[in-house]
Amino acid sequence: MQIYNPPLKEIRFLLEAFGYDEQVATLDGFKDFDLDTVMTLMEQSGRFCAEQMLPLNRVGDQVGLDYDPDNYTVTMPKGFKELYQMSREQGGMGLTAPADYGGFGAPQTAGMILSEMATATNKSYSMCAGLTHGLIDALASHGTEEQKQTFLPKLASGEWSGTMCLTEPQCGTDLGLLTTKAEPEGDHYLLTGTKIWITFGEHDMADNIVHLVLARLPDAPEGIKGISLFIVPKFDLDGTRNPIYCTGLEHKMGIKASPTCVMSLEGAKGWLVGEPNKGMRGMFTMMNAARLLVGLEGVAMGEVAYQTALEYAKDRRQGRALDASKREEGVSADNIMVHPDVRRMFMNIKSTHEAMRGLAYWTGIRLDMAHNHPDEKVRQRADDLVALLTPVIKSFLTEVGFDNISEALQICGGAGYTTDWSLEQHMRDARIALIYEGTNGIQALDLVGRKLPRGGGRLLMRFSKEITRFIEANKDDEAMAEFIKPLKEGLELVSNLTMSVLMQRGMQDPEEAAAVASPYLKLFGYVSLGFIWNLMVKHAQEQGDAFGQTKVKTARYFFSNVYPEIHGLAKLVEAGKANVMALDVDEF
Amino acid sequence: MQIYNPPLKEIRFLLEAFGYDEQVATLDGFKDFDLDTVMTLMEQSGRFCAEQMLPLNRVGDQVGLDYDPDNYTVTMPKGFKELYQMSREQGGMGLTAPADYGGFGAPQTAGMILSEMATATNKSYSMCAGLTHGLIDALASHGTEEQKQTFLPKLASGEWSGTMCLTEPQCGTDLGLLTTKAEPEGDHYLLTGTKIWITFGEHDMADNIVHLVLARLPDAPEGIKGISLFIVPKFDLDGTRNPIYCTGLEHKMGIKASPTCVMSLEGAKGWLVGEPNKGMRGMFTMMNAARLLVGLEGVAMGEVAYQTALEYAKDRRQGRALDASKREEGVSADNIMVHPDVRRMFMNIKSTHEAMRGLAYWTGIRLDMAHNHPDEKVRQRADDLVALLTPVIKSFLTEVGFDNISEALQICGGAGYTTDWSLEQHMRDARIALIYEGTNGIQALDLVGRKLPRGGGRLLMRFSKEITRFIEANKDDEAMAEFIKPLKEGLELVSNLTMSVLMQRGMQDPEEAAAVASPYLKLFGYVSLGFIWNLMVKHAQEQGDAFGQTKVKTARYFFSNVYPEIHGLAKLVEAGKANVMALDVDEF
Repeated sequence: MQIYNPPLKEIRFLLEAFGYDEQVATLDGFKDFDLDTVMTLMEQSGRFCAEQMLPLNRVGDQVGLDYDPDNYTVTMPKGFKELYQMSREQGGMGLTAPADYGGFGAPQTAGMILSEMATATNKSYSMCAGLTHGLIDALASHGTEEQKQTFLPKLASGEWSGTMCLTEPQCGTDLGLLTTKAEPEGDHYLLTGTKIWITFGEHDMADNIVHLVLARLPDAPEGIKGISLFIVPKFDLDGTRNPIYCTGLEHKMGIKASPTCVMSLEGAKGWLVGEPNKGMRGMFTMMNAARLLVGLEGVAMGEVAYQTALEYAKDRRQGRALDASKREEGVSADNIMVHPDVRRMFMNIKSTHEAMRGLAYWTGIRLDMAHNHPDEKVRQRADDLVALLTPVIKSFLTEVGFDNISEALQICGGAGYTTDWSLEQHMRDARIALIYEGTNGIQALDLVGRKLPRGGGRLLMRFSKEITRFIEANKDDEAMAEFIKPLKEGLELVSNLTMSVLMQRGMQDPEEAAAVASPYLKLFGYVSLGFIWNLMVKHAQEQGDAFGQTKVKTARYFFSNVYPEIHGLAKLVEAGKANVMALDVDEF
Repeated sequence: MQIYNPPLKEIRFLLEAFGYDEQVATLDGFKDFDLDTVMTLMEQSGRFCAEQMLPLNRVGDQVGLDYDPDNYTVTMPKGFKELYQMSREQGGMGLTAPADYGGFGAPQTAGMILSEMATATNKSYSMCAGLTHGLIDALASHGTEEQKQTFLPKLASGEWSGTMCLTEPQCGTDLGLLTTKAEPEGDHYLLTGTKIWITFGEHDMADNIVHLVLARLPDAPEGIKGISLFIVPKFDLDGTRNPIYCTGLEHKMGIKASPTCVMSLEGAKGWLVGEPNKGMRGMFTMMNAARLLVGLEGVAMGEVAYQTALEYAKDRRQGRALDASKREEGVSADNIMVHPDVRRMFMNIKSTHEAMRGLAYWTGIRLDMAHNHPDEKVRQRADDLVALLTPVIKSFLTEVGFDNISEALQICGGAGYTTDWSLEQHMRDARIALIYEGTNGIQALDLVGRKLPRGGGRLLMRFSKEITRFIEANKDDEAMAEFIKPLKEGLELVSNLTMSVLMQRGMQDPEEAAAVASPYLKLFGYVSLGFIWNLMVKHAQEQGDAFGQTKVKTARYFFSNVYPEIHGLAKLVEAGKANVMALDVDEF
């Protein structure tokens, strides 16, 4: 059973609730992309995902990739090459690429919706376009005019695909350790080294593959400040094969149709992007956008898992309802939706999942504002919010999203453990999202060690202000009181812990903050969802239809049966480092 | 990388702390099994597991099973048949089988240790012996003398293996729905029907396979009260092939070397076990023992995952220590064990894992007392504790154990996601334990709906008494005060919630209790670990060695950085059913 209905109604509701038309469609460059237009585009894209991408999802997992070590080639599972050709014709690949360079010029928010649907229906396959999208962003921001003209149109059309080559065997999280060398030769460089974990580093769907590679110039300073960024295409512009080869594939738990390559650069020709030794800037452009999309993977995979479990549950009968009035007559067992524990699992998923999507799109709107708003102050404010929420979204959404998939599998019992329902594949495919683009632990350190201290705590103040402004504006709305109260409590908890544990204790001893960064991020995530639920409930009450009533009921579940976990988490944050660091290494 | 060191030192510490020699080795039948003897046996067995079983674990996963639909045969992966032969010679298969029928007659506690080590090193393979062990228990309790003499020696030697055939396509949790028929013919019955999820229902390692099958007699009452139990061997005693065939295998997320069979009974010859229509009794004997062992799977797989992650971490260098004094000179990166977030993950695993093992063995000792103690009152008391803790152990240990494996994988980052470190296999293999032998949701309902109300709350009172007796006995021990305080608080929380939410609200409306049964069980689990940590710390302080000091530090982490989650969980329990059951089915 493979099922997926694009959640367009949910997404439209969110964009309306968050004022997409006022905030984004009024911006220069986005005036052709009002909500109705975007939703029409997304309806078409969603149909493509469900009809063309989803049917190849299980095949991709079961057949996998074919690597030929003699020719360094990777053959995609049957049907993927044709799918890629159809995707190109369908035109979604350059959706957010700049219109001046062959792209469609749509807002990032629209790109996020497309990315969610593509991930949900075929995560492995969607990663190819995801990487290309990241490369387009990086080149659009940091490339020379000539580089843009050379590469962007080919990438936006999907004729060529992109990669990012960061990791090396000795360095993953800690990029300062990288050793790939770039020696100058004429107007270009020759790169030598080994890169690992290179997603779609080699495949047979596009005519050329453009690698964005981190390497060191001969005179580069040590560590992270001596890293430069290069474009290294598989085929040079004259068609010559550039010596950058896939010398192996990783064997992984999931995303088995996504080639994870070892790339050997053997004097490969490359062009510098941006300034020498400032390569991390360009890479961060790429990584920050990528981190939001990785967070959204938790939502995407949670969606398809939820829909699948619901399809199963609505058909399955086991046991009788505890409440005799709910028992169906003339049958020997009731549908399992009568059972409170089954309901609890569905409500756990639904009440976190919908708000997590909301948090991602609320932030997506701010990403568009940060890029395109005419007022610098507004841009800065939006950028602050994106910077603060990016690690939260990356980490919290992938973690809770993964738990939601596991809960969806649990609802289906033994059937969920078999390949028949694909839930086990979704779980395996989704597990990587807690690791790549910076592990979730690294995200927590980014939040606590970089984002909170920045500008004397300016980022968190911005976010608190957004929340308190909402609370203030709705303090006389009786229908909102039950939702505002816990939000206020949660915000106070976050503020207090930020001051006492992270700032005061953490200033004296950074280990104090680092030791509890992960539970702090989780607490922060729940409170963020509490804010999003308030925005959604407010909009739902204004709409007053059946759809909105379900939202209100789901919000109540969230605040009564999920959100109170913040109290336990707060105590874990308060605990600090003492017992975390108490053991010697040989005591483990 | 596949690594496993049998945790014998940990296990010995636990059995000493829980007074194994006084409680078990003094019982009739177990006098030859004092702690030293058991540990010597386990040292041999552990070596066998690590040297013979572990090397075939990844092969089993990657090669999998070969099913021949023409002959209904299942061929195990290469090496498994030889391994089975070695296991038979090694003699562990009949460890706890009755000595009068060819077994070794060892306590269940010893069986649990063996089971833990076997699961950790090759979960798929270990399930064959696990099922046989369950069949031996059921026949020893419910079979006729003739049945025992016929089957037990062959099962105890491993010459034959066993299965339990419960589930049918339309009934998993709800066995009352089963329809397999048993028609009388002479001294036996002819059984017709289809059974699914039959572990090791067919394989090529043993000479015969003995199925324990649930079916209905022609005149049986409807539902669960009309189910009888039958022995159905693959080959009749005269060697004739009995028409019970494997007509298909499930394709699963994990345990890929464990055949999960569809079994078709086409007039298969069977013998009644126990009384007509009382088949669930025999099956419960089997299931209860099995549930404890399934709970222990969370510990077993957590152990191998922890050891693997530690092996990885001790070798991996990334980033510099936040605390400058911990930075190693002359290197560009420190070992990742310096990072507080890595420590946090290890401590999360270690501090739950060790106490979960403790809870399992503490209960195992009571299982032996419940079976073999001369005093009926002591037997009853022990049986009450086992009955109460069985659903907690099955559910909590598999859930937290699974989370621990996932955390171990996370520590290894991208490497953990590859097959190279086997962590992804451990995670896939362990996921089934949350589902089979009664899903974890069913365990929570068993705890709340059956075990708590039984005898007017007698079972919980027994457990509370064990805890308060310990608290009372140690109230003047200053070194224990910091551990006793949270235990006392936790026990009060459990007692209060049991009274207010489950008893009072639940009596009026069973849905109230059912809706929060799962978070209640989780809370109960943490408090149970709190008790076990107290027992361990007390013993550690008496020993006063380095091993004990590590235990005390780990206990402190548990109480400061894990246990406070009970406060969030308590609020989820208090929330009750209102918002759990608020949606109509079509609102999902």
